[in-house]
Amino acid sequence: MMINKVLTLTLNPALDKTVEIDSLETGGLNRINEGRIDAGGKGINVAKVLKNLVVDVRTTGIVAGHQGRRLLAYLDELGIESKFLEIEGETRTNLKVFDRSKSEITEFNEKGPFVSEDDLKRFDILLDRVLNDVEVFILSGSIPPGIKTDIYKKYIEKAKKRDIKTILDAEGELFRKGLEAKPYAVKPNIHELEQLFGRTYSRDEEVVEDIKKLIGGGVELVVVSMGGDGSIIANETETYRVRPFPIEVKSTVGSGDSMVAALSYSIMNNHEIEFIAKWITSAGTMTATKEGTQVCNFEDIRKNLDKVSIEKI
Amino acid sequence: MMINKVLTLTLNPALDKTVEIDSLETGGLNRINEGRIDAGGKGINVAKVLKNLVVDVRTTGIVAGHQGRRLLAYLDELGIESKFLEIEGETRTNLKVFDRSKSEITEFNEKGPFVSEDDLKRFDILLDRVLNDVEVFILSGSIPPGIKTDIYKKYIEKAKKRDIKTILDAEGELFRKGLEAKPYAVKPNIHELEQLFGRTYSRDEEVVEDIKKLIGGGVELVVVSMGGDGSIIANETETYRVRPFPIEVKSTVGSGDSMVAALSYSIMNNHEIEFIAKWITSAGTMTATKEGTQVCNFEDIRKNLDKVSIEKI
Repeated sequence: MMINKVLTLTLNPALDKTVEIDSLETGGLNRINEGRIDAGGKGINVAKVLKNLVVDVRTTGIVAGHQGRRLLAYLDELGIESKFLEIEGETRTNLKVFDRSKSEITEFNEKGPFVSEDDLKRFDILLDRVLNDVEVFILSGSIPPGIKTDIYKKYIEKAKKRDIKTILDAEGELFRKGLEAKPYAVKPNIHELEQLFGRTYSRDEEVVEDIKKLIGGGVELVVVSMGGDGSIIANETETYRVRPFPIEVKSTVGSGDSMVAALSYSIMNNHEIEFIAKWITSAGTMTATKEGTQVCNFEDIRKNLDKVSIEKI
Repeated sequence: MMINKVLTLTLNPALDKTVEIDSLETGGLNRINEGRIDAGGKGINVAKVLKNLVVDVRTTGIVAGHQGRRLLAYLDELGIESKFLEIEGETRTNLKVFDRSKSEITEFNEKGPFVSEDDLKRFDILLDRVLNDVEVFILSGSIPPGIKTDIYKKYIEKAKKRDIKTILDAEGELFRKGLEAKPYAVKPNIHELEQLFGRTYSRDEEVVEDIKKLIGGGVELVVVSMGGDGSIIANETETYRVRPFPIEVKSTVGSGDSMVAALSYSIMNNHEIEFIAKWITSAGTMTATKEGTQVCNFEDIRKNLDKVSIEKI
């Protein structure tokens, strides 16, 4: 039996509502169109890309109330298989207001519904079930109120007992504690790595130094993303400095999630580390050429692989 | 058989979401709590007050999608009988962001779902049904995209054929065209009256002049509200200048709707015009003493009737 399912986890998904106004009036009444609504949250964004890569992807997490049912309906429309726990409260709606006069976005993000201990027990049972036949498990994004920051650590441990490869993409305590469970791969951005090690990098060598610490701590594959400046990718034996090709940036929303998707795709396809470097960079870069929350597809990535410059360091 | 039902119409209801933040950062990410969500829209606000007055009130209008079902659930919780048409799209959500640092509210109001001609035909049939046993029909607030501004005119005509008394509380073309059907009562605020007659008032006499025009045009009862400055109320034979009693204003949200509710209550109880003046003023004033979207109750109104000063002019 072929097992090649990817499972993405989104404990605090959101409805992302994007609206445009002529000019934001603080203290006044701004009339907006309903605008575009997307199912959001890192794990869901990753799943969107994997769907484009024709990967058998499944999503799980926690939704609540009317907004949660609306989010599940959006996933359904996208053809993304979802197994979410439904709890009391309301899934958050994040409003992104684009002010045309200033070309700037003002965001209003909610916290999400409160998750009780009992909810978490029920989610544990659900997770055990949806982890069946999964090869790669992606844990990314923030958590809603009520959940402790060791949650990713616990779930990585659970997955490892079943020989499932895990990818962790989180920040702060979620990242720090998750590392204790030795995930297979991690993809911090440069700021998240700085936060973890409590320092500021001025040279690549310093970044590599800390990447080696992560690998020494039991992580097999580390990708440190640096926005337009590319990334550094390393495993126990090799380290590569990766630089993207020039593009016209439309929106970097979803670029990091596209890298994570390409990373899991590469892991499933047993790509060599140089090839992984090309895949994740092409994916992240091509998503940045798309407007709004749109993400890259298979052809985008494949056609631009050779434009990525990689250098062994 | 006793007939004493009031029907309120809300063609473009809203979920009113009120949140607080420390300080609004334009161009940045503002983290908010889910905050308070209320069922909003003028007709719904009027119904809330009438419910407090133990009136047999029923609400109708148009809702859409997940947000619409959420709104109906809120009405259910409030114990307000609702018969809404459900259409495609989404009922609007209006976000009110309170900035603590500046004590100011920035509002983001959506337009509402598009209503097709076919939707309107279906609503017509529903309206014919819910108008049964109704004594007073209140038409108030704005309309969603797709509906023409003569809608209130048509519905007032429909109600009059069934000897139902109508109260119109709308602005712009909705008000202007609605007047052609000669509603029983209207409650413009001073600005709406200025807009209708294309002039700016500096003295009460000028307001009374235009009120007389409305009565000459076939309206039986006119209330012109002037915020903290009180109101002028008139029928064919009498005109009163009404002044409210001093209060600590907490929030004027819903004050106008409370006046409309008290007006319909008074009409149903065959109050004399002086008594109507006291009722509507006590209701509007007491709602202004309540925080947020809270409205007055029966005792609030009754206990303060004698504090209202009225003067025949």
